[in-house]
Amino acid sequence: MKLYDLVGKDKTQGFSPNVWRVRMALAHKGLEVEMVPLIFTEIPNIEGVEAKTVPILEHDGKYITDSWHIACYLEETFPEKPSLFGGDEGKAYAHFIHFSSSYNLTTPLFQALALDIFHALDERDRDYFRETREKRLGKTLEETAEHQAESLAAFVKQLWPYNQTLKTQDFFNGDSPAYVDYTMYGLFQWAKGVSPLKLLSEDEPLYAWRGRMDDLFDGLGKVIKVRS
Amino acid sequence: MKLYDLVGKDKTQGFSPNVWRVRMALAHKGLEVEMVPLIFTEIPNIEGVEAKTVPILEHDGKYITDSWHIACYLEETFPEKPSLFGGDEGKAYAHFIHFSSSYNLTTPLFQALALDIFHALDERDRDYFRETREKRLGKTLEETAEHQAESLAAFVKQLWPYNQTLKTQDFFNGDSPAYVDYTMYGLFQWAKGVSPLKLLSEDEPLYAWRGRMDDLFDGLGKVIKVRS
Repeated sequence: MKLYDLVGKDKTQGFSPNVWRVRMALAHKGLEVEMVPLIFTEIPNIEGVEAKTVPILEHDGKYITDSWHIACYLEETFPEKPSLFGGDEGKAYAHFIHFSSSYNLTTPLFQALALDIFHALDERDRDYFRETREKRLGKTLEETAEHQAESLAAFVKQLWPYNQTLKTQDFFNGDSPAYVDYTMYGLFQWAKGVSPLKLLSEDEPLYAWRGRMDDLFDGLGKVIKVRS
Repeated sequence: MKLYDLVGKDKTQGFSPNVWRVRMALAHKGLEVEMVPLIFTEIPNIEGVEAKTVPILEHDGKYITDSWHIACYLEETFPEKPSLFGGDEGKAYAHFIHFSSSYNLTTPLFQALALDIFHALDERDRDYFRETREKRLGKTLEETAEHQAESLAAFVKQLWPYNQTLKTQDFFNGDSPAYVDYTMYGLFQWAKGVSPLKLLSEDEPLYAWRGRMDDLFDGLGKVIKVRS
């Protein structure tokens, strides 16, 4: 099994939030995987795959794309391994958090990180990234970075329901982590991999939760070093 | 079992979103309940109860307050009846939606409905409601109503992750409804009970979902008539 990953200058620091979701899901299932580090402009060159984005999971001669589809594929293909959802209700929950976090958290966080991501990239990816992302943002990366504090504030404000949930339970899934937690963890791994920006304060429940997530699977998430 | 409800001029049109959550939960469990209609200023007068808000469930000599606590109480007290959560993951899901809907949906919806609620109230509640809500809003009910279109737009914008989730499943819980659906349904019953405001367009998944919710339990939710 191979998992195609996104890296920048440092080939050990895969920073895609969606790849991190799958990477944690594979560890949860106890499945061994070979990581294949790619830069943005290499992704369309994988033979036999139409995808322009990672994660891409190669298994049994098949390529599965999109983090949510991969999670569902793993759950169906390995039902005897620990469940990623814990049943239909847990799957519905993970599906909802997939959308709610994408809508309320990923967007402002991307705006806060955009220029930092650019600086973390391999030189060969910079023109591609600048062109596509500036079009999406409607402004230059540098103009976007001037509003970093506001973007971060918009992200932090939307953490409220997530913090409230963790006040009375250790993980989003309840007493133990599952895919819904990996969905959220991917966002923090993304930020950690590209930026020194401080997203959480020590007194909020998400801070302690992130520490618990860092410790899972022999500290798998800690392969990402805080950038300075 | 008695459920204390909030009404306005029309004593048959209980409009509290949180009471509707519990009312649907009781029907889901197949439990009979006597509804006790109260106006806002009567709530603090129930003997032996400290609560200032409904729902209040009276059962077996006890009073249980707060919709989430009542849902958990019902699940624990009647484990042999149909489950409201379907297990720990479903409970975590309902808990998260309790917070996310409160944060992103209830606030703008209240701003859109505030003056309509005022007009639906029993005369004896009007001074209390105007004083407490204007303090909370930081402006008069009439000033709030001048921005009704913006408040509605803010509410509608935040429906995105909810609509996305319902694109591939009939209920938030999955194939069948559970407490997570009643949490959301309460918001729409609230609006329907006090205002002619149109919250959903016919082409969005939430519209069809609301229709399915209206049909549950012999059309229980349809006791609320659309206001004009």
